[in-house]
Amino acid sequence: MKLGFIGLGVMGAPMAAHLVAAGHDVSGYDVTPAAGEKLAAAGGRAATGVADAVAGADVVITMLPNHPQVEEVVLADGGVLDTAEPGTLLIDMSTIRPETSIAIAEAARDRKIRVLDAPVSGGQAGAEQAALSIMVGGLEADFAAAKPVLDAVGKTIVHVGPHGAGQVVKAANQLVVGGIYGLVAEAIVLLEASGVDAATGLDVLAGGLAGSRILELKRKSMVDRRFTPGFRIDLHHKDMGIALAAARQADVALPLTGLVAQLVAAGRAMGYGSLDHSALLKVVEQLSGRVPAEV
Amino acid sequence: MKLGFIGLGVMGAPMAAHLVAAGHDVSGYDVTPAAGEKLAAAGGRAATGVADAVAGADVVITMLPNHPQVEEVVLADGGVLDTAEPGTLLIDMSTIRPETSIAIAEAARDRKIRVLDAPVSGGQAGAEQAALSIMVGGLEADFAAAKPVLDAVGKTIVHVGPHGAGQVVKAANQLVVGGIYGLVAEAIVLLEASGVDAATGLDVLAGGLAGSRILELKRKSMVDRRFTPGFRIDLHHKDMGIALAAARQADVALPLTGLVAQLVAAGRAMGYGSLDHSALLKVVEQLSGRVPAEV
Amino acid sequence: MKLGFIGLGVMGAPMAAHLVAAGHDVSGYDVTPAAGEKLAAAGGRAATGVADAVAGADVVITMLPNHPQVEEVVLADGGVLDTAEPGTLLIDMSTIRPETSIAIAEAARDRKIRVLDAPVSGGQAGAEQAALSIMVGGLEADFAAAKPVLDAVGKTIVHVGPHGAGQVVKAANQLVVGGIYGLVAEAIVLLEASGVDAATGLDVLAGGLAGSRILELKRKSMVDRRFTPGFRIDLHHKDMGIALAAARQADVALPLTGLVAQLVAAGRAMGYGSLDHSALLKVVEQLSGRVPAEV
Amino acid sequence: MKLGFIGLGVMGAPMAAHLVAAGHDVSGYDVTPAAGEKLAAAGGRAATGVADAVAGADVVITMLPNHPQVEEVVLADGGVLDTAEPGTLLIDMSTIRPETSIAIAEAARDRKIRVLDAPVSGGQAGAEQAALSIMVGGLEADFAAAKPVLDAVGKTIVHVGPHGAGQVVKAANQLVVGGIYGLVAEAIVLLEASGVDAATGLDVLAGGLAGSRILELKRKSMVDRRFTPGFRIDLHHKDMGIALAAARQADVALPLTGLVAQLVAAGRAMGYGSLDHSALLKVVEQLSGRVPAEV
Repeated sequence: MKLGFIGLGVMGAPMAAHLVAAGHDVSGYDVTPAAGEKLAAAGGRAATGVADAVAGADVVITMLPNHPQVEEVVLADGGVLDTAEPGTLLIDMSTIRPETSIAIAEAARDRKIRVLDAPVSGGQAGAEQAALSIMVGGLEADFAAAKPVLDAVGKTIVHVGPHGAGQVVKAANQLVVGGIYGLVAEAIVLLEASGVDAATGLDVLAGGLAGSRILELKRKSMVDRRFTPGFRIDLHHKDMGIALAAARQADVALPLTGLVAQLVAAGRAMGYGSLDHSALLKVVEQLSGRVPAEV
Repeated sequence: MKLGFIGLGVMGAPMAAHLVAAGHDVSGYDVTPAAGEKLAAAGGRAATGVADAVAGADVVITMLPNHPQVEEVVLADGGVLDTAEPGTLLIDMSTIRPETSIAIAEAARDRKIRVLDAPVSGGQAGAEQAALSIMVGGLEADFAAAKPVLDAVGKTIVHVGPHGAGQVVKAANQLVVGGIYGLVAEAIVLLEASGVDAATGLDVLAGGLAGSRILELKRKSMVDRRFTPGFRIDLHHKDMGIALAAARQADVALPLTGLVAQLVAAGRAMGYGSLDHSALLKVVEQLSGRVPAEV
Repeated sequence: MKLGFIGLGVMGAPMAAHLVAAGHDVSGYDVTPAAGEKLAAAGGRAATGVADAVAGADVVITMLPNHPQVEEVVLADGGVLDTAEPGTLLIDMSTIRPETSIAIAEAARDRKIRVLDAPVSGGQAGAEQAALSIMVGGLEADFAAAKPVLDAVGKTIVHVGPHGAGQVVKAANQLVVGGIYGLVAEAIVLLEASGVDAATGLDVLAGGLAGSRILELKRKSMVDRRFTPGFRIDLHHKDMGIALAAARQADVALPLTGLVAQLVAAGRAMGYGSLDHSALLKVVEQLSGRVPAEV
Repeated sequence: MKLGFIGLGVMGAPMAAHLVAAGHDVSGYDVTPAAGEKLAAAGGRAATGVADAVAGADVVITMLPNHPQVEEVVLADGGVLDTAEPGTLLIDMSTIRPETSIAIAEAARDRKIRVLDAPVSGGQAGAEQAALSIMVGGLEADFAAAKPVLDAVGKTIVHVGPHGAGQVVKAANQLVVGGIYGLVAEAIVLLEASGVDAATGLDVLAGGLAGSRILELKRKSMVDRRFTPGFRIDLHHKDMGIALAAARQADVALPLTGLVAQLVAAGRAMGYGSLDHSALLKVVEQLSGRVPAEV
């Protein structure tokens, strides 16, 4: 199949390569020219711009940092909607606000372009191993058409609802993940400050109703204060902003999410933005005056 | 072994019966006389009071609602410390503040009585199936002595640290459990208010980094609004009070715990105290104006 | 002086009328044509569109609901920057995110247009009585030029810093106001639920370190549950969104602000959006199960 | 009148001296003997213990750190209730949990002792200048009897309701004060991080609906980072514990109070316990990574 791929960053580059390996004809573009050259070396084609990547494509995939970039690439003059032919399927895999995904779907309808929002989880490792979880919002028929393409980059690929639903599920995922990190951080600080061995205490928690994937995968590294990403606090900060925007859009009040967002913001403001999101522990520690001098 | 057992409520009664079944000579007391008679019918002995239950016992177990009852039974004139013989081992399985457990251990030392704090998780079902998780604080030698006794009521039995450590780990467990319920509730409200099918959305969350025992066991009942306990909000409210007391004692600041405690308090204040703690969902719903008229 | 005035709503209409009364030649435009006619009846001129309002003006004032309207009116093709002559002074009195004010200032610089952000507080009553507080961000010289114009609509007019600073001060104001309403609401609920007469209790608070303008002006109406606006919760909800956006822009973590924003969102979600912001009391009451059946 | 005064600390000592100066016959006791001697030097009498201070007194005043001390002095064997003659009026001016005040009133009734809870605000300066605000809970007749005595130490003396009501109003006062400090701290951090002069910004806030006694008295010292007490964070931490206990007793949910309590706890945990409570600013600063290296 003929694919256009826009956004060849740490996520997009391996995804595009997997699509090439799956036999697709991939024309990729990124603002950083070296990224396109790398794709060409892997068997794809380096497009000279958005319009060039889109030209003749059956499916266009976008994987961009945030909603301003998506608006620029998709909605602006010379962007995807402006240059793609009617019938093209646009799969936006960026993590952005649901309201932007919905606005894009509305704009695309006028141009007879089909759109799915399909944010992912699983991070850089998931992209490299073609093992992403993909939450897809949009029409059932478009999902069916996209599925064979997405199979080349993801492992769990679920159609969760109408336009924007993919983003909402991703937002829900991130607020739960951020919150559990915060709770585990508070548990560790309480245990250690009470003179209890945190590793032993967390073993007990992990085995009962408090158990979670995060306790399973990260309790050891958190107790050891190893915060190599993984998923950076800076990215989780962006995602908490999306969760709050989604809540505002849906007209709901999410008190824990509101506080978790500020704790994640604190992580970034304190200078831990490039550490793994489990470094929320450093924020809680600092709040309790239990911090080593060095960062 | 000769055991005294004080507190034969919904937890204590089945625990005492399991100890009888394990071959121990159990003398039990409860403020409700019928509870003692029931133990007698099961092969134990109904004691006439605390001193009678304690008389001649190698091990005394207390399973009481909260710290005032523990203080009354253990510390008051005519209580356990006052009437037990030197060398007796007191295992307090009540969930109370760590500082009370520590105060009891100090008082007991003067009387040459050995003490463990050994709160449990697993609830009424765990007690009835002798499948409790037991978090034990105190001396290693005393833990070793208690282990064969505790084996009759628990499945996971862990020595987590010095006096009070059992209570601290239990408090950490409860703050994480309460917090995850709150986060899942916020996720459900966000999904539903955004027009996304919550069951489908939570399936995705359950399979990734947001996954947890609570999502595994309770997501279906939460989405269906079935809140049969389980573990009552009233009890979780008590436990959040203990978590905050433990934080105060340890001189740490736990912002999420502070907010979770208020949401659980809201559950109780709104009249949901006798529902399962997953009914925290009703609090978050009400906050977002998404509440059915009836409670 | 020749003025263009865009946005003749509940705030803009009386402000434009005051400017006419002060002797200015005011050409006003609003998407609702009736608003322009009303201005004409008051001695101004009803412009046919943005460009018409701007044509020949020395000073253009915008008073619009939120940043999308400001972007549309100021930045879009045919907007203020596109049609005003170099040297024109644009005073944006809308309450919007600081980052939008800064972006406008940057865009204006290229067109040689001078810009101030000048959000107000004091509400509809302040607009009608020409008694607004005006927080102005931008260059000192432009502030000096604007001052005589602003004198016709405001009482306290302060230059608080560079471009965007007016919005930041307004955001800080709104987070403090929203927070104090929340705190007073919690105090009332605690007093009443404890059997203490809230009016008497708040009298004491008002006289000491807990005293505030809000306690002074609103404690009686809050205790009496009179929530006639005033300033609507819907508007305060918008403003809390701006405060959080400003915090994100400044890279700071504001935990109380994050929670206050959710409580205000709850007020709106619960259906109190058109009540006065002191109706935050209804949210806190409901959280504590102390709610009258009717809204 | 013959008075017993128990607790001659930084608050009690000047209060007892004012009562001597007002012509009362004051017999004072403190665990620190030097405090009694100082009272004797001021014209009072140094009692040898609680019973000695109480002997023959018409009115007994207690001014103690927290509820354990009050329970020890008032309720224990040889304490005030045990040794005072029927008809004695006990005025407990300590700041403690409402439930303890109520429990004392119940115990006192059996002994025919009259009791008022009468916590104060105004701090050390208020005590030294006999200018305290006094919130009194108990029977109207007992308040009338106490009024002439309290006039010697207080300026605003208000009967706010039944037993415990004085403590509830004090708790409400402290939660509002702590919360406003937190909000002002967040406003300062937002202003400064946005490049706005905080002093100018706060001037605007102080003049409008965001205005408060705290902004009036403390905004300059906060912006200048002068945190000389005043009222220590350690004491406010104790008071937030009382506010949460009062909320629990009244079965209400106070989300902002819950979070403010954790921020104050953070102040103490971070090592600022002996600074003025306005040093909550240092907590918020640190959360936003805006902290000078030294404390």
